[in-house]
Amino acid sequence: MERTMYPLDPKEMPTAWYNILPDLPQPLPPERHPVTKEPCPLDMPLPPPLFPDAINKQEFSKERYIEIPEEVQSIYRLWRPTPLYRAHRLEKALSTPAKIFYKYEGVSPAGSHKPNTAVAQAYYAKKEGFKRLATETGAGQWGSALAMGAMFFGLELKVYMVRVSYNQKPYRRMLMETWGAQCVPSPSPDTEVGRRILKENPDSTGSLGIAISEAIEDAFAHDDTKYSIGSVTNHVLLHQTIVGEECRKQMEMADAYPDIIVGCIGGGSNFAGQFLPWIRDKISGAKPDLRVICAEPQACPSLTKGPYTWDYGDEAGLAPILKMYTLGHTFVPPPVHAGGLRYHGMAPIICHLYKLGLVEARAEHQLATFKAGVTFARTEGIISAPEPNHAIKVVIDEALACKESGEAKTILLAHSGHGHFDLAAYDEYLSGRLKDYEYPEEKVKEALASLPQIT
Amino acid sequence: MERTMYPLDPKEMPTAWYNILPDLPQPLPPERHPVTKEPCPLDMPLPPPLFPDAINKQEFSKERYIEIPEEVQSIYRLWRPTPLYRAHRLEKALSTPAKIFYKYEGVSPAGSHKPNTAVAQAYYAKKEGFKRLATETGAGQWGSALAMGAMFFGLELKVYMVRVSYNQKPYRRMLMETWGAQCVPSPSPDTEVGRRILKENPDSTGSLGIAISEAIEDAFAHDDTKYSIGSVTNHVLLHQTIVGEECRKQMEMADAYPDIIVGCIGGGSNFAGQFLPWIRDKISGAKPDLRVICAEPQACPSLTKGPYTWDYGDEAGLAPILKMYTLGHTFVPPPVHAGGLRYHGMAPIICHLYKLGLVEARAEHQLATFKAGVTFARTEGIISAPEPNHAIKVVIDEALACKESGEAKTILLAHSGHGHFDLAAYDEYLSGRLKDYEYPEEKVKEALASLPQIT
Repeated sequence: MERTMYPLDPKEMPTAWYNILPDLPQPLPPERHPVTKEPCPLDMPLPPPLFPDAINKQEFSKERYIEIPEEVQSIYRLWRPTPLYRAHRLEKALSTPAKIFYKYEGVSPAGSHKPNTAVAQAYYAKKEGFKRLATETGAGQWGSALAMGAMFFGLELKVYMVRVSYNQKPYRRMLMETWGAQCVPSPSPDTEVGRRILKENPDSTGSLGIAISEAIEDAFAHDDTKYSIGSVTNHVLLHQTIVGEECRKQMEMADAYPDIIVGCIGGGSNFAGQFLPWIRDKISGAKPDLRVICAEPQACPSLTKGPYTWDYGDEAGLAPILKMYTLGHTFVPPPVHAGGLRYHGMAPIICHLYKLGLVEARAEHQLATFKAGVTFARTEGIISAPEPNHAIKVVIDEALACKESGEAKTILLAHSGHGHFDLAAYDEYLSGRLKDYEYPEEKVKEALASLPQIT
Repeated sequence: MERTMYPLDPKEMPTAWYNILPDLPQPLPPERHPVTKEPCPLDMPLPPPLFPDAINKQEFSKERYIEIPEEVQSIYRLWRPTPLYRAHRLEKALSTPAKIFYKYEGVSPAGSHKPNTAVAQAYYAKKEGFKRLATETGAGQWGSALAMGAMFFGLELKVYMVRVSYNQKPYRRMLMETWGAQCVPSPSPDTEVGRRILKENPDSTGSLGIAISEAIEDAFAHDDTKYSIGSVTNHVLLHQTIVGEECRKQMEMADAYPDIIVGCIGGGSNFAGQFLPWIRDKISGAKPDLRVICAEPQACPSLTKGPYTWDYGDEAGLAPILKMYTLGHTFVPPPVHAGGLRYHGMAPIICHLYKLGLVEARAEHQLATFKAGVTFARTEGIISAPEPNHAIKVVIDEALACKESGEAKTILLAHSGHGHFDLAAYDEYLSGRLKDYEYPEEKVKEALASLPQIT
């Protein structure tokens, strides 16, 4: 019998998240205050206190392992441990000697990795006595995950959803509502900033930057409310390490260790959750040859094209200033289907590792990623979201390189979720209507001109 | 640690399907020929030979176990064994002493139990040298599963999809196309029957009966093509027993045996796949108190309202005449969202067991099933398809009865799949637009008037 799935017994599910901060070869550049632009001490939560205390502490923790509260573990167990698969059929279709594995987060009720942090963030907010959460969402992936997380702890949730997506993609809105959250199109008449923008432009289709501003304003305006974010920050990456921690145990079951780990990056949390628990072996020198490849869209290539500099985490300039590879916080990427990869910057931890030469990056065109996604669907069965299709494209390239060189490398794919809500994009691809977007060099140049001035 | 998931090691996946036929306390009434209306010998495949030989043999096999071909097992392993869960959160929400378990088929790439038979049917067609399959689909659940099955064996597939669904529910059509199948709206200009109907009524929205006729005509018209069906027949129920066979092992891991098993029935294959491997214990006398409850829609209540009589399996009268509880083969049920439960008859095996008093049946209204589905989503996280919501309704009723009586019964739910393509129905429910349909007594009376006359 050819072994395909490596399920981890629920009793073996890791009970701690892995924190890379103490293992970094050089410390992460400190965040800067959005108004004063001065460095903030690492052990002091930034004003404004957007997050619960426990989250602020995790953001800068020096502990290598942080225990996952039993209440969070208990919800993780509704779908975790997630399966690790060996992609025998894809390997055969490519005639590659490479061994391809994939860890699949699509089995969560929300269909992606996002609940790993949503559940944790909701738990801490509840524990500290808050009643409500506010957040933004683009295509709705994060909003629906947090809707589920908030529901489990009896928290109210208001999601500000970018209006163009709210109108075009009603299914994730319905998902949020089924789990009991309130979802409004952004800009909305419910906040100061929303009213201002609607007054200036009643037909505004919104942007993630506006939605963030609305969610933050909402959290500020209500004492019982905290803001919640779905990627980029250290604590989100921390919560996602449950993925890689599980995967290490499963790869051991398969008697395998990856030569190459591949994942897609938007804000970076999905892939960091997988690779951080492995890259410590590279940092420590135990596995110096381990390669980690980040896949990003050609339409929004932060790592491969952006400068490493100081920039706001959000468009409105309310969030901390972070040292990132960035295309500029006012940059609006072309409308590729991989909505989760349309972020101007990148998680500071990933940027830091990229700067240190510990991870690689590759930018892919939309059409090629859908071609890869269809190959995956027609061999492994799973219809993937447009985001992981970027990683699948890179995996296939690496597997074909193995065919060329005759090397039987072990490739591990971080598969972040299914594409059940993205079938219209597949339809566009299959009917020849899907197109590529060139890297919008001029727009980036313009956006980079408005970076915060840090001396 | 509270145990939630009972994953079965892939090495423990059953390697044989369970065939109930030799264990029935009385033999199943033989099928009758659609034209001569004479009983057909059980060991003779009915003309016309719609199915591959191996399938025809399985339909009337006397073997208790039929080995699952290694090629089929290998594809099952892309998502099987499927998980068994203990519904702790639902139990708590209901304050019931009952122990609720559910076996979840939503993890298959097509999102339901349907691939269990789709893969097997595609395998046998391929093995016997056929190049193509033809089938019909209503809402697209079965068509997409067979698209996946056909793809794995390099078979072409043409799906005749009821036109009203083709237009209203494009996502499952896209799913079929992503897996490489051709999907056309039925009635289509591609068949004699389709052209005839389009000539009479160019705006025909189609029906499952018409689509079946088109698929059968297609299979007849091509020597390299076989017809494939997604429920009702004995061989489909047989292939689905992988679900119950796995579940027996998992319930043993949980040190539990069900007092009550609940599932939804349309053609009956999903639920029979779960309960047949258990009901043999009731037939043998080992577990005389085991209760098996079939949940059907009030809008299409074959078991609870139909007579037990001879009727065609399809609307056009091309398929064999079966002894069934039926509402009449010309009956068109009201448009409830549970498209998979809108079948006029019922699997003969289930009808036989119902007649013998070995299984019970209960009819549920749509609104109550969505209420149950939302309760499930807000406790267990999973958004269920409208079909299993019928079963969830019954499970909740039984669990509340336990609360009343103080009995800690063990309830096992056959959960057939997720509702990712049914969110518009949840939206209707949550916004108060969803309505119930009364049992259409007059229409049934009319349909029952056109039953085949069997002397």
